Amino acid sequence: MTEVNRKAAIIGGGVIGGGWAARFLLNGWDVAIFDPDPQAERKIGEVLSNARRALPALYDRALPPEGRLSWHDDMADAVADADWVQESVPETLALKHKVLGRLSALAPAHAVIGSSTSGFKPSELNAEGARAIVAHPFNPVYLLPLIELVGDPETCARASGLLRDVGCHPLTLRKEIDAHIADRLLEAVWRESLWLVKDGIATTEEIDEAIRMGFGIRWAQMGLFETYRIAGGEAGMKHFMSQFGPALSWPWTKLMDVPEFNDELVDLIASQSDAQSGHMSIRELERLRDDNIVGMLRALRRTKTGAGGVIAAHEAALPAPAAGDLPVTGDRQVPTSWTDYNGHMNDADYLRAASDATDRFMEMIGADADYIAAGRSYFTVETHTRYLAEVHAGDRLRTTTQVIDGTGKRMHLFHRLVRGDGTLAATVEVMLLHMNLATRATCDPEGIVAERLSRMAAAHADLPAEDIGRHVGQRSKPAVEPA
Amino acid sequence: MTEVNRKAAIIGGGVIGGGWAARFLLNGWDVAIFDPDPQAERKIGEVLSNARRALPALYDRALPPEGRLSWHDDMADAVADADWVQESVPETLALKHKVLGRLSALAPAHAVIGSSTSGFKPSELNAEGARAIVAHPFNPVYLLPLIELVGDPETCARASGLLRDVGCHPLTLRKEIDAHIADRLLEAVWRESLWLVKDGIATTEEIDEAIRMGFGIRWAQMGLFETYRIAGGEAGMKHFMSQFGPALSWPWTKLMDVPEFNDELVDLIASQSDAQSGHMSIRELERLRDDNIVGMLRALRRTKTGAGGVIAAHEAALPAPAAGDLPVTGDRQVPTSWTDYNGHMNDADYLRAASDATDRFMEMIGADADYIAAGRSYFTVETHTRYLAEVHAGDRLRTTTQVIDGTGKRMHLFHRLVRGDGTLAATVEVMLLHMNLATRATCDPEGIVAERLSRMAAAHADLPAEDIGRHVGQRSKPAVEPA
Repeated sequence: MTEVNRKAAIIGGGVIGGGWAARFLLNGWDVAIFDPDPQAERKIGEVLSNARRALPALYDRALPPEGRLSWHDDMADAVADADWVQESVPETLALKHKVLGRLSALAPAHAVIGSSTSGFKPSELNAEGARAIVAHPFNPVYLLPLIELVGDPETCARASGLLRDVGCHPLTLRKEIDAHIADRLLEAVWRESLWLVKDGIATTEEIDEAIRMGFGIRWAQMGLFETYRIAGGEAGMKHFMSQFGPALSWPWTKLMDVPEFNDELVDLIASQSDAQSGHMSIRELERLRDDNIVGMLRALRRTKTGAGGVIAAHEAALPAPAAGDLPVTGDRQVPTSWTDYNGHMNDADYLRAASDATDRFMEMIGADADYIAAGRSYFTVETHTRYLAEVHAGDRLRTTTQVIDGTGKRMHLFHRLVRGDGTLAATVEVMLLHMNLATRATCDPEGIVAERLSRMAAAHADLPAEDIGRHVGQRSKPAVEPA
Repeated sequence: MTEVNRKAAIIGGGVIGGGWAARFLLNGWDVAIFDPDPQAERKIGEVLSNARRALPALYDRALPPEGRLSWHDDMADAVADADWVQESVPETLALKHKVLGRLSALAPAHAVIGSSTSGFKPSELNAEGARAIVAHPFNPVYLLPLIELVGDPETCARASGLLRDVGCHPLTLRKEIDAHIADRLLEAVWRESLWLVKDGIATTEEIDEAIRMGFGIRWAQMGLFETYRIAGGEAGMKHFMSQFGPALSWPWTKLMDVPEFNDELVDLIASQSDAQSGHMSIRELERLRDDNIVGMLRALRRTKTGAGGVIAAHEAALPAPAAGDLPVTGDRQVPTSWTDYNGHMNDADYLRAASDATDRFMEMIGADADYIAAGRSYFTVETHTRYLAEVHAGDRLRTTTQVIDGTGKRMHLFHRLVRGDGTLAATVEVMLLHMNLATRATCDPEGIVAERLSRMAAAHADLPAEDIGRHVGQRSKPAVEPA
C-alpha cells in the first residue's frame, strides 16, 4: 500500500507562515511554499530549524517522517493538489482580497482556504467572492495548539478534523466578530499596558513581571473563569462575582465601557462555569491547579526564567543539610510528578535523585560549574540500583554518598537514599570516569579534585558498603568484595 | 547558638490569608493567626494541606523546618513581636480603616503592616492614620511569587528583603494607582470577557480555551512585551508596533479609550523593551521561549490539562513503530530538557527511557492500565545500566526489549537504547516482580499476562544478550551466563 501524503500550500512566509509550514511538515504533510520575499527561504529555514528542535520534544513517541518541502514562484503550482491552503500575507484588506481571490480560483475545490488574519471577519475577507475561512494561529505556531476558526460551518468542521491530525486545538467561533476571541483579550491588555507605560506607572519590564510572576502562570493551565471559580473558594463562581462584580464600576482601568452587572449576567456566567467545571470540586480543582503550576515552575527552573528564576535563587539560599560520617548529597521532599501508576516513586526518579547526588558530590570535591567550564568533568559509565522500599509523594528523601574508589580516572560512588522515617529506600552504585570535554577522552583529574576525592575515599574506606558488586537477580552475597 | 524564628501575624484567613500563612510557615517563620470566622481553622488547615503538598515540591532541597502555628482570639496577642503583619479582610474601605488602624497601634514599630487589597491605594488605606503598605499577592499565594508593593519607600524596601527570604518576587510600584498593575490588566480582560459572554460570542469555557491553548502559555514565561518583541521578528519591537499600532483605532474591543499612537509612544515602548531584553538576540529569545513552552507543555501532559491534553491525545494517535526480532518499546526524539552540563543526555534520563520502555512492554503483554486498575502490577526491584555512547538533544532514540526470564513472579528484561545512527547507546537490565497492589506483596501474574510473557520469553531465548549479569566495575566477561 502506498500512502500519499496530505499537502499544504503556504502563501506568505514570515514567522506565521513559517510556523504553519513547520506544523504541517513535521506531522508528515508535504508543504509547498509561495512567497515572493527573496529572504523567504532563509527566514522559513530558521523557523523550521527552531521547530525541529522543539515540536518533537513535546512527544514521547516519534512523529511521522517529515513530508516533502518545495518552493514555488508560481501560486498555481504551489496550490495544485493541496488539501489546505494557508494565507499569511500582511494585514491589509485590499491585499487579502487580491490573494484570497486568486487562491479561491486556483485551489482544488476540496481544499480548505484559511487566512491567518488577526482581525478581519470572513464577511470582510470574502467580500469580493473568495471562499476563505479564518484560521488564526498563535506564535509559535508549531508549539501552541490554538487555532481560531471562523466562517462557513461545513468548511470549519472539515478544517477542525485536519487540524486535530496535526496536533492543533481548533476553536470554532459561534459568530464572526472583529479580532475573534483571543485577540480581543490581548488588545484589552495591550491598550491598558500602553496607558500604564505612557502614564509612567510601569515600564514594559515591570508589566511583563506583573504577568509572568503571577496570573500568567495560572492562565497557561486554566484560563480566566476556571481560575476565578477556584478563587471563589467553597462558595464558587457566584461568590466570586459578588466580590469582584462591583469593581466594574470602579476606575480600575482606563477602558471604561462595561456591561451592566445584574442578576442575569451573574446567572449566565455562573451557569456556564458550572457546565465547564462543575464535574470537579473546588478542592480537586485546587490540586489540579497546584500540580500544573508546580510542574510548569519546575520546567521554568531549568532555564531560570521568570518565576523559575525566583525559585532557583531562593533554593541556593536555603541552608545546607548537616553531614554525619558520610556527606549528605541530597535532602528534599518527593514531588507528585515523581510518582507513577503504582502510586509510588517511579523507578527512573530514584536514579534522578542519585544523579542529583552525584552532581552535588562533584561540587563538594571541586568538580563544579567552573571546573566543567574549564573543560573537565565526570561521565557516568555504569549504574546499579536496588529498590528496597516504596517512596511516596510528600516523603522526605535524604541521600548520602560513600566513595568506594577514587584512584586515577575512576570515581566509584555508593549512594544511599533514605526515607524521612529512616528506612533505606534504595542503594545506587555508580561508576564515573574523569573526562576531557574537548576530546571526549578519559584523563586523570586535576590537583584539587584528585586530592579531595582521595581524601574522601580514605575517610570512607573503613565504613561498610553492604551492596557493592552485585549483579541483577543475585540472591545472596555480593559477587566480589568491595574495593 | 539559638536562633529565634521570624514571626508573621495573619489577620483574616480565607484563601488569601491562608496562603500567606502557608508561605511564611513553610519557610520557617512562626505564624500567629487572628480570624473571628468559626470556620477559620478548618479553612486555613485545608490551604496549609495543599501548600505542604505543593510548595516544597518546587525545590530540590529541603525547606527549613516549619515554624510554630498559633491561633489567637485577641489581635494584640497575634501581633506581639511580629516582624510582618498581613491584613486580608474583605474589600471594604471602612473595614480596612478599622482593622489597619488597630494593627498600626498594636504592632511593633519595626513590623511591616501589609494589606492584601486588590484595589485600594495606600493613601486611601492610611487616610485615618494607619501606617500600612499594599502587599498584594496572587492566589495560590504559596506558589505564585508575585507580591505588588505600594507605599512608603523605606517600608517597601524592608518588605522586599523579607519577601525574598520566603521565596517571593516583590514588585514595587513607582506610583500608587487604583488596582495596582496586574489587576488593571486582569480587569481589562475580565470586562472584555463579560462582554463576550453577554453578547453570546463565546462561553466561559471557550474563553478559557482561547487563553490556555494559546497566549496564556506564552505569558507564563515572558509576559506581553517580550513576547511581542519576538513576534516582531528580526525587525524587533518597532516593527511590531508599526504592524499592530493601527489596531488601536479599530473596534477590536468594547473598551475604547486609547492613548494616542505617536512616535513618542513608539520610542518609549521600544527603548524600554531594548533595556529589558536587548541583551539577547531575537533568535536566542525564540529558543528560550521554545524551551520554556516545551517544558511547561510537558508538565501539563502529566495531568492532561489544556494544551497538555491536546498533546497526549495527539500522541496516542501517532503510528506505532515497526518491530523486528525484538519488540520496539520506544522511538522518540531526545528533548533538550534531557541533557545536562556535559552537553549530552543525563544519566538519569537513560533510565527514564528504559522505564518508559518497561511501561510499553507491560502494555504489550496485557499488564496495562485496566490490569493495574484491577489491582495487579509489576514493581522494579533492580536495574543495571551500561552507558556506551553519548546521546544529544534532537537525536532519535529507539528502544528494544528482550525477555531474559518470565517465570513465576519474575520479569527479567534487557532494554537496548539505540541512537538514530544505529549506535548502541546503552543497555539497561531490569528485574521486576509481579505485585498485588492492595497487599503490596508479590504474587504470580494472571492468565493472559503470564501466557504472553512466557511466549515472549520463549521467542527471545535464543537471541544473544551480551551484557546480562554484569556488576558495576566489571572489566571482562559477565559474572554469570545469561539465563
